[in-house]
Amino acid sequence: MPPELLDAIRQRFSCRDFAADAALTAAELAMLREAGRLAPSAFGLEPWRFVSVTDAAGRARVAEACFGQPAATTATAVIVVVALVAVLDPDSPYVADRLAAEARGTDVAALLAAYREMYAATDIEGWALAQCHLAAAHVLLQATHMGLGSCPLGGFDRGALHAALALPAGEVPALAIALGRCRQVAPERLRKPLD
Amino acid sequence: MPPELLDAIRQRFSCRDFAADAALTAAELAMLREAGRLAPSAFGLEPWRFVSVTDAAGRARVAEACFGQPAATTATAVIVVVALVAVLDPDSPYVADRLAAEARGTDVAALLAAYREMYAATDIEGWALAQCHLAAAHVLLQATHMGLGSCPLGGFDRGALHAALALPAGEVPALAIALGRCRQVAPERLRKPLD
Repeated sequence: MPPELLDAIRQRFSCRDFAADAALTAAELAMLREAGRLAPSAFGLEPWRFVSVTDAAGRARVAEACFGQPAATTATAVIVVVALVAVLDPDSPYVADRLAAEARGTDVAALLAAYREMYAATDIEGWALAQCHLAAAHVLLQATHMGLGSCPLGGFDRGALHAALALPAGEVPALAIALGRCRQVAPERLRKPLD
Repeated sequence: MPPELLDAIRQRFSCRDFAADAALTAAELAMLREAGRLAPSAFGLEPWRFVSVTDAAGRARVAEACFGQPAATTATAVIVVVALVAVLDPDSPYVADRLAAEARGTDVAALLAAYREMYAATDIEGWALAQCHLAAAHVLLQATHMGLGSCPLGGFDRGALHAALALPAGEVPALAIALGRCRQVAPERLRKPLD
């Protein structure tokens, strides 16, 4: 008999209608960010940060950048997973710090050489955006585990969201996650068959 | 008091040394693919499939494409999350089927128009590769939940892995996941601080 599916994977669905009067607590938001922080990343670079937006004016700006999608307009909090792109330069202090940690006392020069090769051959912004999706999946499953509703929002005006969050140059929003207490019941699962 | 962190998120780590004599069962592999299948995707497009490799010759080819990384050479199974790129053309039968399901009886033409706009403005291969990382995170957490070791492998020769899996044109390997019974103890967590 196969072991069971992780409850959060079984129960998660994309909520499009959140209760207006149910703000997330600071502790809940911290736990969601912690779940994202523990995601794996290539070379241990953790090329992300998590921007929480809870105030009404900030949420309105984020919702507008997300084209007014219902999940964005009704969410009581949004966590945006932001890709750290500029600091991924192989000569940055950020990379030096992360690779020194990742090497765990072994040869950091070899690790840096491998990273340099990857960096030169890769669209690093696209790579960082993809890595951010590992962290985003953690946040989504953790939200389910905590009884919260969530919805990943990939459809946004990148420039508008960048401005709404006042991000510095060199950071790129990867995915916004709408959060709150869901007012919907779980809809029927729609998935193509495995084969 | 904050609710607890999901066990699988707390316990997961990247295993680099798998026991040689502990093959995964077909039921275990099916459960891992099912976890990936339940991941969210924009427009409900599920732009992925999951290719399991368990035979020794196939694993050797995959390990070679992964530059002989220890996790790849010692894994007793590898699941490669493969991005379905060509079928994402807005005029494909695949897109018609998935959007018809996603519309849930509402206006599929409006959904297709929005998708067409996104498709025209997006590097669709990069987009599909990023989506695959949501599914990959599900597989990794499900493996932990099942007591299995896992390691995401993003460092591979894309052409060599494509050939090793005999993928058709229009499909692109996104991430390989090495799997097995881990012989390591969980290493100390290395993460940059949240702020």
